[in-house]
Amino acid sequence: MSSAMSASARITALEVLDVRFPTSEHLDGSDAMNPEPDYSAAYVVLRTDAGDGLEGHALAFTTGRGNDAQAAAIATLAPHVVGLSVEEMCGDLGTFSRSLVHDPQLRWLGPEKGAIHMATGAVVNAAWDLAAKRAGKPVWRFLGEMSPEELVAQVDFRWLSDALTPEQALDILRKAEPGREERIARLLERGYPAYTTTPGWLGYSDEKLAHLAREAVADGFTQIKLKVGASLEDDVRRMRTARETVGDSIRIAVDANQRWDVQPAIDWMRELAPYDPYWIEEPTSPDDILGHAAVREAVSPIKVATGEHIANRVVFKQLLQAGAVDVVQIDSARVGGVNENIAILLLAAKFGVPVCPHAGGVGLCEMVQHLSMFDYVAVSGTVEDRVIEYVDHLHEHFVNPVRIADGHYLAPAVPGLSAQMHPESLKEYLYPDGPVWTARV
Amino acid sequence: MSSAMSASARITALEVLDVRFPTSEHLDGSDAMNPEPDYSAAYVVLRTDAGDGLEGHALAFTTGRGNDAQAAAIATLAPHVVGLSVEEMCGDLGTFSRSLVHDPQLRWLGPEKGAIHMATGAVVNAAWDLAAKRAGKPVWRFLGEMSPEELVAQVDFRWLSDALTPEQALDILRKAEPGREERIARLLERGYPAYTTTPGWLGYSDEKLAHLAREAVADGFTQIKLKVGASLEDDVRRMRTARETVGDSIRIAVDANQRWDVQPAIDWMRELAPYDPYWIEEPTSPDDILGHAAVREAVSPIKVATGEHIANRVVFKQLLQAGAVDVVQIDSARVGGVNENIAILLLAAKFGVPVCPHAGGVGLCEMVQHLSMFDYVAVSGTVEDRVIEYVDHLHEHFVNPVRIADGHYLAPAVPGLSAQMHPESLKEYLYPDGPVWTARV
Repeated sequence: MSSAMSASARITALEVLDVRFPTSEHLDGSDAMNPEPDYSAAYVVLRTDAGDGLEGHALAFTTGRGNDAQAAAIATLAPHVVGLSVEEMCGDLGTFSRSLVHDPQLRWLGPEKGAIHMATGAVVNAAWDLAAKRAGKPVWRFLGEMSPEELVAQVDFRWLSDALTPEQALDILRKAEPGREERIARLLERGYPAYTTTPGWLGYSDEKLAHLAREAVADGFTQIKLKVGASLEDDVRRMRTARETVGDSIRIAVDANQRWDVQPAIDWMRELAPYDPYWIEEPTSPDDILGHAAVREAVSPIKVATGEHIANRVVFKQLLQAGAVDVVQIDSARVGGVNENIAILLLAAKFGVPVCPHAGGVGLCEMVQHLSMFDYVAVSGTVEDRVIEYVDHLHEHFVNPVRIADGHYLAPAVPGLSAQMHPESLKEYLYPDGPVWTARV
Repeated sequence: MSSAMSASARITALEVLDVRFPTSEHLDGSDAMNPEPDYSAAYVVLRTDAGDGLEGHALAFTTGRGNDAQAAAIATLAPHVVGLSVEEMCGDLGTFSRSLVHDPQLRWLGPEKGAIHMATGAVVNAAWDLAAKRAGKPVWRFLGEMSPEELVAQVDFRWLSDALTPEQALDILRKAEPGREERIARLLERGYPAYTTTPGWLGYSDEKLAHLAREAVADGFTQIKLKVGASLEDDVRRMRTARETVGDSIRIAVDANQRWDVQPAIDWMRELAPYDPYWIEEPTSPDDILGHAAVREAVSPIKVATGEHIANRVVFKQLLQAGAVDVVQIDSARVGGVNENIAILLLAAKFGVPVCPHAGGVGLCEMVQHLSMFDYVAVSGTVEDRVIEYVDHLHEHFVNPVRIADGHYLAPAVPGLSAQMHPESLKEYLYPDGPVWTARV
């Protein structure tokens, strides 16, 4: 392919697939607010006429019902994408992402929240996948090798300037420039620390919990997580079982998945405190900044974590301004994609709060590892008190699944965002017409 | 129809129509963030086999693109509705609305925000339309004649208890019980005060602004509103023109439609302050509770108003807790319907903040008047400093359009929520296949 051909290449299609996995059959992924999730992907493919065989793949994650509406939201963005110059889009993903976010009609459905914002995230992430593939780099490294100026250009600073200006962002990135190479080398050698939620689903028996917790420690994890919030009596027993199983040196986080009001969250955590929980995740509504601040003040030194349902950078900004969180949990598929997550990483760095991503579901581990690794290389410059969530579900459907060794995510080596699924998986689990689903009707 | 037949009646269908009006052709409705809206409705019809000819009609409002995705979000709720006993649903709309909001899979698309929450609002409102029609009352009166206990049962108190408990809500409603009849009589006689945004769209010339402002005062309005935020120089000139036109006794609100960051909002309002703006509406992101609080502190005595894009009761709760707003602007079609708006009216009453609804678009005036009238009858008990927005767009498409006289909304007399459109309008403006749209391609 000549470079002249490449320069004239266009995005020819934005395809959306409704792909669902019947995970509710085994209570994997069960928690106090999500008793029976069917992990699902509103899956996006960007195709081009470049002739280089490269496509952009990414997804919005949902838990089953509504995945069709999520797919419909993604489809509304096609007119903003189809027909674009591949080179222009991939060469200026900041402008591209803002062109989706700021559509003056589509933004009514948000603004910048819910299905339309997750749709933007999926399309923006697919564009990053394509851009990184064209550059021949995994996204974490593609980002980690950009200049501070290029990175600042990715960010939409609208509504952020009372907490973070472009100049302050540039300053953070410039301070982290020395040592990038060493940190890249360390990632390639050792990977990025992980924690596992595998032992802690609500649907599991105490025996299964203890068995899986023991296994997690043997596998090199230094932190595990339990779901809580359905029954206090059960939670006290499960927390005690977990603590007795793993000993005092392993961190045990707990996750209430938004189940409580403010005072019940405080009361419940007082009962679990004797077993030394490391953080309480999603104690209450993800929209309740002031509520999180009140919980944090009351349960300290237990840390407060949230993020997987935080709608956008404006809410993260306030959680940090209000001193409401000790741990920022970015999600690769909730906000407006890589660009908005760069903004959130910069905000967390500005406030000196560690980022420990939410993952699991389907494809979330694959995508979010790139963001933490980029954070380490070019933003925060540290892995101290930072861990990426790991759940061992559904990785077999990905062309380049995450690789875990000794409690660490190994750095992806293959170009792109790692979200591409096997064509057979996309066919088998297509909803409602794939064979996995027609066999169930 | 015998009562035995009625008792066994079921919801037989939830229909959704994508209806769009090409309003962008005339710059009606143009503001700093919505330069070219095509006012649209994702329109819901609930049908039954009761044989009484009654249907539930309501809509989610959008500004054009994305109305199809909004319709898809509404369609995901059909399995929660179709097959229900009409009597049970209409007899316990609190349980019904919570059954939609708490779907553990659909809530992933929010939770309680964006397209999926607007979908819930549309379906819940359609159920209220049907219930009020069956009761033979307009919704404002149907609500205004419920007991305090029945009203409290409508509210989802999840995440509210740090600001409002069921007992406190009951107390507010009981205190307002004396005088209900007199207030109903006053509404029937005089109506509810309105203000008008008709003069103030950004796309209008100064001459048109002055002409329409003069007309508004002649029509009995005591408050008008101007859109601002695109050009400071233009805004100063337009504000001066408006003030010179209407004199000092007419309130002039201004509306930035989220255009500014915190400090720019403060700076801009200092330039407009000499012309005595009554409130600044949506100065910044609707998600920015702390930002609104900072703006309010800086621009006082100019009031701060927001609400049309506030996602849910949890954000309203915090705006009130943080002292971030002087005026709560409920919207009939943004949150989870009548039930969540009852919660918001109760929160506003608890904090002593007046409610001045957002309206306009298509059908928003028709629906929201019921909520303000109910607030007057049974919650706040006053119309002091309270006005409902009025915009004279698209009312001709409704079977029972709002009636305005001497700057007041006249109380609807016809049973239901007033959101039902003429069948011919639904056919003509159907997107993309209605004749209005096929003629444009």
